[in-house]
Amino acid sequence: MSLDNAAMTVFGDSMSGNCLRVKFVAERLGIPFEWVETSVMKGETRTAEFLAMNPAGQVPTVRFADGRILAQSNAIMLYLAEGSDLIPSHPWQRALMMQWLFWEQYSHETAIAVLRFRKTYLKIPESELDPSLVPRCRKALTVMNNHLARPREYFVGDALSLADIALVAYTRWSHEAGFDLANWPAVQAWVRRIEDDLNIEHAQ
Amino acid sequence: MSLDNAAMTVFGDSMSGNCLRVKFVAERLGIPFEWVETSVMKGETRTAEFLAMNPAGQVPTVRFADGRILAQSNAIMLYLAEGSDLIPSHPWQRALMMQWLFWEQYSHETAIAVLRFRKTYLKIPESELDPSLVPRCRKALTVMNNHLARPREYFVGDALSLADIALVAYTRWSHEAGFDLANWPAVQAWVRRIEDDLNIEHAQ
Repeated sequence: MSLDNAAMTVFGDSMSGNCLRVKFVAERLGIPFEWVETSVMKGETRTAEFLAMNPAGQVPTVRFADGRILAQSNAIMLYLAEGSDLIPSHPWQRALMMQWLFWEQYSHETAIAVLRFRKTYLKIPESELDPSLVPRCRKALTVMNNHLARPREYFVGDALSLADIALVAYTRWSHEAGFDLANWPAVQAWVRRIEDDLNIEHAQ
Repeated sequence: MSLDNAAMTVFGDSMSGNCLRVKFVAERLGIPFEWVETSVMKGETRTAEFLAMNPAGQVPTVRFADGRILAQSNAIMLYLAEGSDLIPSHPWQRALMMQWLFWEQYSHETAIAVLRFRKTYLKIPESELDPSLVPRCRKALTVMNNHLARPREYFVGDALSLADIALVAYTRWSHEAGFDLANWPAVQAWVRRIEDDLNIEHAQ
C-alpha cells in the first residue's frame, strides 16, 4: 500500500455494505481515513458537488489527499489491499478471489442488498416487490452454503481474503432481507467467523 | 500467463458480450482455446452436467486441461491477461481499470445487456419492459461519453486495457437495445477504434 499515511476521505453511507467493506479493509490494514457520512436516501450522492467528484453518483467514493478519486467498492478494496495478505499471492487463488468479487456484485448484491433496501428502508409492501428477488436471494445463499459446507473456513484458500469481506458485507444483514441464516448453517457459521476476524459486532 | 499452451475450453454463448470478451482477450494474447457453444436460451447452462461445473449456471465458464474451473468473465480475463500489456503495470492505473470493470458489471451490463436481451431476443413488447431500463442505459452511455470526450482514446491511460474490452462488448450492440450511438459520438468513435484494435468486425 503506497498511501504513506496520506489522508484518505471515504464518502460512504453506513447502511451500505458496499461502503462498509471499504471501512473494514482500511481498519484491518491500519490505513488512516476520514469517513464522511453521505446518505443515499437524503440525496447526498446527487448534489452537484458529489457528481463533480463521481459522475456515477455512487458511494463509496474515495478521495486521496492529492485529489485522486476512486469509486467502486471492490476497486477501492483491491487498491488499498495491494501487497497485503488480504489478496492471495498465488495467481490461481487470486483468480478465484476475483471470481467471487464479481459474482457478489452481479448475483448477490443485486438480490440480497436490493431486497433488504426495498423491504427495510423503502418499506415497500411484500406484494409490490419484484417476485424474482426472493428466489435469487435463496439461490445466492445456497451457492455460498454449498461452497462453505465442503467444509471451508474461508471462500478462497485457508485465509481471510477480500472475497470474504465483500461477501460478508450484506450476508450478515440477511435477516433485514427476510432470511434466517439458520437455514444456511455453513453461511451462518462463516459470517460469525468473519465478523470475529474483522473485530466487528455480530449483526445477528 | 502461466497456461504453457495447456488446452483451455471456453463454454460460452456467442450472443453474450460477457462470453465474447473472454474470446477477444484469448485471441489478442494468442492463447489457444476450444469454444464450446453453450446456449442460455436453450437451457444448456441449466443441465446437471453444466451445474456440476459451475453451480451458478452462468457462462462464460472456463475449464483448463487439468480440470480447474473459473467463472465470471472479468475474473477470467484478468487471469488470462496477467502480466500482459492489457493490464496497466502502474497500481493507480490498474485501480482505475478495476473501477471500470466493476462499474460495467453493475451499472452498464445490467442496463444495456439486459434491455438488448429482453427486446431483441425475448421480444418483450416495449410496454412490458421495466421502465427504469432506458434511463439507466442512457446514463451509462453518457457517463462513458463524458469520460471519452475529454478527449481520451482509451478508458485508462494511453493504451488498450481490459476496461476497453469489457466495456466494448455490449456497447457495440447498443443498437440492439434501441440506442443510436450517433447521439454519443465519443463512444461511437471509441467503439470503432477498439473493434479495429481487436481486429473484429464493426457491429454497426
